[in-house]
Amino acid sequence: MTAPAMLAEIDGIGRDPVRGGHSRHLLDDADRELREWFVSTAKNLGLEVERDGNANLWAWWHPAAGPAYPAVITGSHLDSVPGGGALDGPLGVVSALEAVSRLRAAGHQPARSVAVVVFAEEEGARFGVACLGSRLLTGVLPADRALDLTDAGGHRLRDVLAENGIDPAGAGADPDRLARVGVVVELHVEQGKQLAPLGAPLGLATTILAHGRWSLRITGRGDHAGSTELSSRRDPVVVAADVIKAVRQAAVDAPTEAHARATVGRLTVTPGGTNAIASEVVLWLDARAEHDREVRDLVAAVSAAASRAAAAEGCAVTVQEESFSSRVAFDQQLTDRLDGVLGGIPRIPTGAGHDAGVLAAFAPSAMLFVRNPEGVSHAPAETASDADISRGVTALAACLADLT
Amino acid sequence: MTAPAMLAEIDGIGRDPVRGGHSRHLLDDADRELREWFVSTAKNLGLEVERDGNANLWAWWHPAAGPAYPAVITGSHLDSVPGGGALDGPLGVVSALEAVSRLRAAGHQPARSVAVVVFAEEEGARFGVACLGSRLLTGVLPADRALDLTDAGGHRLRDVLAENGIDPAGAGADPDRLARVGVVVELHVEQGKQLAPLGAPLGLATTILAHGRWSLRITGRGDHAGSTELSSRRDPVVVAADVIKAVRQAAVDAPTEAHARATVGRLTVTPGGTNAIASEVVLWLDARAEHDREVRDLVAAVSAAASRAAAAEGCAVTVQEESFSSRVAFDQQLTDRLDGVLGGIPRIPTGAGHDAGVLAAFAPSAMLFVRNPEGVSHAPAETASDADISRGVTALAACLADLT
Repeated sequence: MTAPAMLAEIDGIGRDPVRGGHSRHLLDDADRELREWFVSTAKNLGLEVERDGNANLWAWWHPAAGPAYPAVITGSHLDSVPGGGALDGPLGVVSALEAVSRLRAAGHQPARSVAVVVFAEEEGARFGVACLGSRLLTGVLPADRALDLTDAGGHRLRDVLAENGIDPAGAGADPDRLARVGVVVELHVEQGKQLAPLGAPLGLATTILAHGRWSLRITGRGDHAGSTELSSRRDPVVVAADVIKAVRQAAVDAPTEAHARATVGRLTVTPGGTNAIASEVVLWLDARAEHDREVRDLVAAVSAAASRAAAAEGCAVTVQEESFSSRVAFDQQLTDRLDGVLGGIPRIPTGAGHDAGVLAAFAPSAMLFVRNPEGVSHAPAETASDADISRGVTALAACLADLT
Repeated sequence: MTAPAMLAEIDGIGRDPVRGGHSRHLLDDADRELREWFVSTAKNLGLEVERDGNANLWAWWHPAAGPAYPAVITGSHLDSVPGGGALDGPLGVVSALEAVSRLRAAGHQPARSVAVVVFAEEEGARFGVACLGSRLLTGVLPADRALDLTDAGGHRLRDVLAENGIDPAGAGADPDRLARVGVVVELHVEQGKQLAPLGAPLGLATTILAHGRWSLRITGRGDHAGSTELSSRRDPVVVAADVIKAVRQAAVDAPTEAHARATVGRLTVTPGGTNAIASEVVLWLDARAEHDREVRDLVAAVSAAASRAAAAEGCAVTVQEESFSSRVAFDQQLTDRLDGVLGGIPRIPTGAGHDAGVLAAFAPSAMLFVRNPEGVSHAPAETASDADISRGVTALAACLADLT
């Protein structure tokens, strides 16, 4: 089955009737259905599927003589942001499946094992930490911290894993498995619009911006919107507005070469009544820049502005770091090698985090991007043409053949 | 049973474990339980309970010779804002029940009928329109418009009524019932802090500020928070921040004598992902001032600022009026009469809307406020002392005795 056909097969899973697009979050109904689909599809291709202790799925293609490690790891993730596009994640999984299928059909005999991996909760939409599965696997995120993460409904990761038959005691750093990872090639839909102006269907990643997430909790005093005079208000929504403005301004004020970007895309108002002054606002800051220091400076500027705005309104604010990922430079030697296989294609940086970025600290890693004509991602309008997807599969198959 | 005892009896119903306080919305589980409690309690007091076509409950105390209209209407509502206090609404209901109970125990023979009414959805928290039950009853809100209102889960009022055994065809203006309403006295916890500085446990209402609700829908372009450069963003959250600031500023800029207040307490971000630039924000504006014109001017200023901010960010914004209530002056003659009964108590204006304010256009209406020591309302910290509540019941009983 081709990658577009597989995408069509799963397109109905996790449709979001309110936001549009797809909402597929770790071990929710949609994610469970996608996981079952992956296991069944990979088995039908003759792969050996196993789940590790961190809810990642591994579909193995071993040499005829048996497993040969360190292996070549490909794949991506199946979860999405709320109301996300159909390609961010799934494209890398289905392309890997088709690439392996083509190689097998062509009689390729791999010299070392290949794994198509589905990493868990790459978007961090349910439990707040992006690349949850790869961070746990590598030990970048300690299990004891992760297991107490809660989703919006108050469910702890620990309990969600257990309810899905995954022993929480088995979560966390997995050095034996990590030792089997020899090289990582993740294919992904381009996020941003760098390839289209170049007329290029494919690109190789150079770097991932340093990035992180911070939650800001602004506490005021809940009160009646009609009877409370302006002078006695302590309204956290007004402070949140100042914070949002400061977030944009901090990114604008950063040096041009920092390529800084900062976003508030998630915000909850408590209690959330039309005629009630809120008692609390929690908002999430997503901040990115070329270098760690630039991200830290940006967050410091936002924190300072938040404190000033809170003080002016009689509110309090706390800032908590939820996750931080240093700048990633993908492996130069590996990327050069793949570029040789592919006959020379553009190299582009990316602002988006990826599991391959987490693994890059542990094994040579590279990423292959498929052109996104409008550049839109994390939204239903995300697209790639079937022709480009097919070119991506061909390129990935060539890379896997070369590496095995 | 005393009013505080009745409040204690219903205190466990509709507790909100996330926001604190109570969340009781039209015909949800909590509201249904409160309605059953009211029917049973009123029947135990010997009252005849009926439900009208608009989901309002009427508990009648008729003269021994039978119904005598026009009647004296008292009561309030049992629904709350999300995470609201225990008194806003229920205090008026339980005080009316105790007042009637005391009068009956004292052998008072009313010359005309009395009704303790529970008005439906006074807060408008579920379907967006405040004083829904009294607006429908009086025809201020046409039934065909109301029945298509939807809650956050997409349920239409029409269907929610039907599922609860209330025929939607019977909703709407009820002139026969309205003709039975002779005079209205609603007791309510004070919202704001005007009585405490006067050392007064009770007050009578003079006016309700003109007030209304507007929804602002800001549409941008959903995209990836990491890969989208600042220059190509169309982020509705940034526009929302400008709107929130403009809302506060418009209230600050209004003439002092307008007593203007404007609030954003409810806001939804779609899709709401940490790493996703939002595609849409809907926020609700609650605006109030002494005179209709001042509210209109304020909303016009906010709308203009919203349009400018949207244009600057490449977003679009629409402003829709959800409800509007003109300034209400309570009946001078009735208020003077009650003041005479009560021996002279403070008269205070209020910024909050009430069912008695809706009915004031159809029958002489007055309101009695019970001191709120901290002035906090629409929040769990709303309070009144048991001694003040008892004084309120005594005053209401005296008013009812005088009017019947």
